Amino acid sequence: MQPEDFAFRTTIRVRYAETDAQRVVYYAHYLTYMEVVRWDYLRSLDLPFEFLRDFWQRHFTVEVRCSYKSPARFNDVLEGYGRVARIGHSSFDFEYLFVHQDDGRRIATGQSIHVLLDRDGEGGRPERVPEALRAAIAAREGWEP
Amino acid sequence: MQPEDFAFRTTIRVRYAETDAQRVVYYAHYLTYMEVVRWDYLRSLDLPFEFLRDFWQRHFTVEVRCSYKSPARFNDVLEGYGRVARIGHSSFDFEYLFVHQDDGRRIATGQSIHVLLDRDGEGGRPERVPEALRAAIAAREGWEP
Amino acid sequence: MQPEDFAFRTTIRVRYAETDAQRVVYYAHYLTYMEVVRWDYLRSLDLPFEFLRDFWQRHFTVEVRCSYKSPARFNDVLEGYGRVARIGHSSFDFEYLFVHQDDGRRIATGQSIHVLLDRDGEGGRPERVPEALRAAIAAREGWEP
Amino acid sequence: MQPEDFAFRTTIRVRYAETDAQRVVYYAHYLTYMEVVRWDYLRSLDLPFEFLRDFWQRHFTVEVRCSYKSPARFNDVLEGYGRVARIGHSSFDFEYLFVHQDDGRRIATGQSIHVLLDRDGEGGRPERVPEALRAAIAAREGWEP
Repeated sequence: MQPEDFAFRTTIRVRYAETDAQRVVYYAHYLTYMEVVRWDYLRSLDLPFEFLRDFWQRHFTVEVRCSYKSPARFNDVLEGYGRVARIGHSSFDFEYLFVHQDDGRRIATGQSIHVLLDRDGEGGRPERVPEALRAAIAAREGWEP
Repeated sequence: MQPEDFAFRTTIRVRYAETDAQRVVYYAHYLTYMEVVRWDYLRSLDLPFEFLRDFWQRHFTVEVRCSYKSPARFNDVLEGYGRVARIGHSSFDFEYLFVHQDDGRRIATGQSIHVLLDRDGEGGRPERVPEALRAAIAAREGWEP
Repeated sequence: MQPEDFAFRTTIRVRYAETDAQRVVYYAHYLTYMEVVRWDYLRSLDLPFEFLRDFWQRHFTVEVRCSYKSPARFNDVLEGYGRVARIGHSSFDFEYLFVHQDDGRRIATGQSIHVLLDRDGEGGRPERVPEALRAAIAAREGWEP
Repeated sequence: MQPEDFAFRTTIRVRYAETDAQRVVYYAHYLTYMEVVRWDYLRSLDLPFEFLRDFWQRHFTVEVRCSYKSPARFNDVLEGYGRVARIGHSSFDFEYLFVHQDDGRRIATGQSIHVLLDRDGEGGRPERVPEALRAAIAAREGWEP
């Protein structure tokens, strides 16, 4: 993954709360950073907020993977790149790249798989990703119609 | 506050996730430790779990205070003491003391004020703390009937 | 505390990671928000970054207090106001106000007391807050010289 | 992965702090749970604490993967199984299985790859995993000598 492979980017400044006793970002917080990228990506689409929030509340993560390339430290600003790599019936994949803003160093890469359920809570069943969202993502990613 | 002032105690081992770049427990996590003490205290009462979970889900924190006495580090085991200091109509106060298990060092003290609402979510209104809970707490704390 | 009492402000968007099962921001995360305000305040002063980072690494929190006025939810944007209320020999106090960006609702207020130590780690002793920092804060806060 | 594939197990009770607005454990916290399993595993070996803490402080995570099978909720108790799947020169792999204590439901599985460095901090280089640790893990895992 390279920055130029992504059509979306956001920025994240490392909080002291996110460091650990090795003085680097604790590894679990990259999943929070992925959440920030994912949500900022969705917010950047031309879709009503209520629609997005409802979608967000019913999307569950099935799998996540993170590769740690170089540590980030307190106050570092990370460029968080994100893209949708695939949309299936009710599932979709995100990919992420975190780069240090100052020196372009690769900090981490990640992938996640999510599924949309028909309700938030017990006993939800997979639901087809809405057309409006598919279209907005396809436009963002430059997919062939 | 001294350990002998408390009728309830639980133990908490510091996770690496809870340390920060000063190699001590990040200050916000003591509020999570207070949550653990509060919930363990409630669980220790002789009340049905469903009752407690419903109560927990509708109790909101109004105020919290923490005094940091000595830093705790990774793998340290803390004795977390807790007591109910007061029950009003719909509000109640907890007090906390965290002591290092090995050397008895005082790590932190805390207080919190909570209010019970009649529902979980928007527009809840204060609700009287149930008699069953008052009685169980009074028994635990050794209050005069 | 009112917004007009503060000379500094930053903004914080609530992450999903910071919500809890009551669908509001978990109470401990306001201490992280206070950290963001505190650090952004310091960064906004006209002082070298290395100086600030060294100061930050050696400042420990002695006491914190937070009053919760109204819940914040996922994606809410908070205006985080901060000010230095007092500087002693080696200690200093911060005050905070969090307001909902959309409707001006008061979300939380807070106070914290910190002490500067002469080293980061075991056995540090209180050290006088540097003159350069005192001067920069006095200028920011509009204190009489 | 099945529970019977693991020679080590610890237990984790879900804190309210770890839930999110979907009323389930936020996905990043499983990496913290993995940390708890990993450290409890190491602690369970017959090795001096100072040795383990030094090792821990110099082990960095290179990659992590988590598969989410079924959501966990507040107060759920999880059985966290862990094993070392491989030890190379300076790297080693852990595998994890989280099972709901009450009903045996699979909650999550995970893998992580770590590398030991010769120092904690900037510019560390890979260091061979110590023989004493290899031997203790081999004994725990029942590997052929």
